Amino acid sequence: MEKRMKINYDHPDAFDMPLLEAQLNQLLHRKPIEMPTYDFTQHTRSNETIHVEPADIIILEGILVLFNEDIRNLMDIKVYVDTDDDIRFIRRLERDMKERGRSLDSVINQYLGTVKPMYNQFIEPTKRYADIIVPEGGENDVAIDMLTTKLQSVLNQEKMGFSPIFSFSFRFFRCMTITQNPIVLFGKYKNQYDA
Amino acid sequence: MEKRMKINYDHPDAFDMPLLEAQLNQLLHRKPIEMPTYDFTQHTRSNETIHVEPADIIILEGILVLFNEDIRNLMDIKVYVDTDDDIRFIRRLERDMKERGRSLDSVINQYLGTVKPMYNQFIEPTKRYADIIVPEGGENDVAIDMLTTKLQSVLNQEKMGFSPIFSFSFRFFRCMTITQNPIVLFGKYKNQYDA
Repeated sequence: MEKRMKINYDHPDAFDMPLLEAQLNQLLHRKPIEMPTYDFTQHTRSNETIHVEPADIIILEGILVLFNEDIRNLMDIKVYVDTDDDIRFIRRLERDMKERGRSLDSVINQYLGTVKPMYNQFIEPTKRYADIIVPEGGENDVAIDMLTTKLQSVLNQEKMGFSPIFSFSFRFFRCMTITQNPIVLFGKYKNQYDA
Repeated sequence: MEKRMKINYDHPDAFDMPLLEAQLNQLLHRKPIEMPTYDFTQHTRSNETIHVEPADIIILEGILVLFNEDIRNLMDIKVYVDTDDDIRFIRRLERDMKERGRSLDSVINQYLGTVKPMYNQFIEPTKRYADIIVPEGGENDVAIDMLTTKLQSVLNQEKMGFSPIFSFSFRFFRCMTITQNPIVLFGKYKNQYDA
């Protein structure tokens, strides 16, 4: 467990990309999946799973969803939500100090030691694969309206026979209103680390 | 005319923003305009104008269309088409050498002396005002489809009573297919320079 606490969850290796890819393919073939869950207290995957039925739209959300080529190739619309470095740090600082009771030093140390290097190495380069880049995320009403219009037009086309996969930021997705609930897969397909 | 030849057309001052704003407002109020034309051989605005009737959608295209705040405030969707620096230079190099018979040295000198500094100073900072950023422009089928879907949904709503203004790259816009022709205003509202 101590070993698990040191795992770097901003690194792509922390995610079970093969499982995510396999389950996306099942959903695309209109088969239900057993989505893994994660036990944050034990820092490992829980034995419980969530039963997820297929839907017309699949939204894949997470900081590293554009990293893996096989998973990228399954996506129909790839969205990268772009936020200035300082704003990203300020949001993290507020969240970690106010909601998680962390000290200023520990937030800064984690940010400079892991979060920022991993962002620069693995996340920022995936912007290159995006079909559209959305500045400011959840406060960007125009981009939300445009993506909502596109999703709604997909839902209005009957008997499409396929499920488009979108990548989104959840912060961004929460602001959308469409007539049918899509499947939302979070970037929580973390690896099973044995104790 | 020699003075006019030295005018820097990548600088915002080269454009007649007040005329553009006035004519956009006329179109928004469903009134026709007399769009100015530009005489490249004389490096000044021509006496001829083009009569433009109002339409349901107005597309404003040009490298500096997001520069002026008053004009930005008239726009409903602000799109910034983003291309890597090297690709932008290669496209200019090919166009100027192959189509315009310019020498390699003259293209490089103009690029480093004017085009790149003006881009860095006036154009790149306007990315901040965009609602969405589109990488790769005309080859980005997914972004084209998304914007086309949005424009088509605007056209399908009857009696809207207003004309949404979009900013686009023409390269990008040419790839769109919608059922009604929009007005396309190019960034050619250059200032009238007296001889």
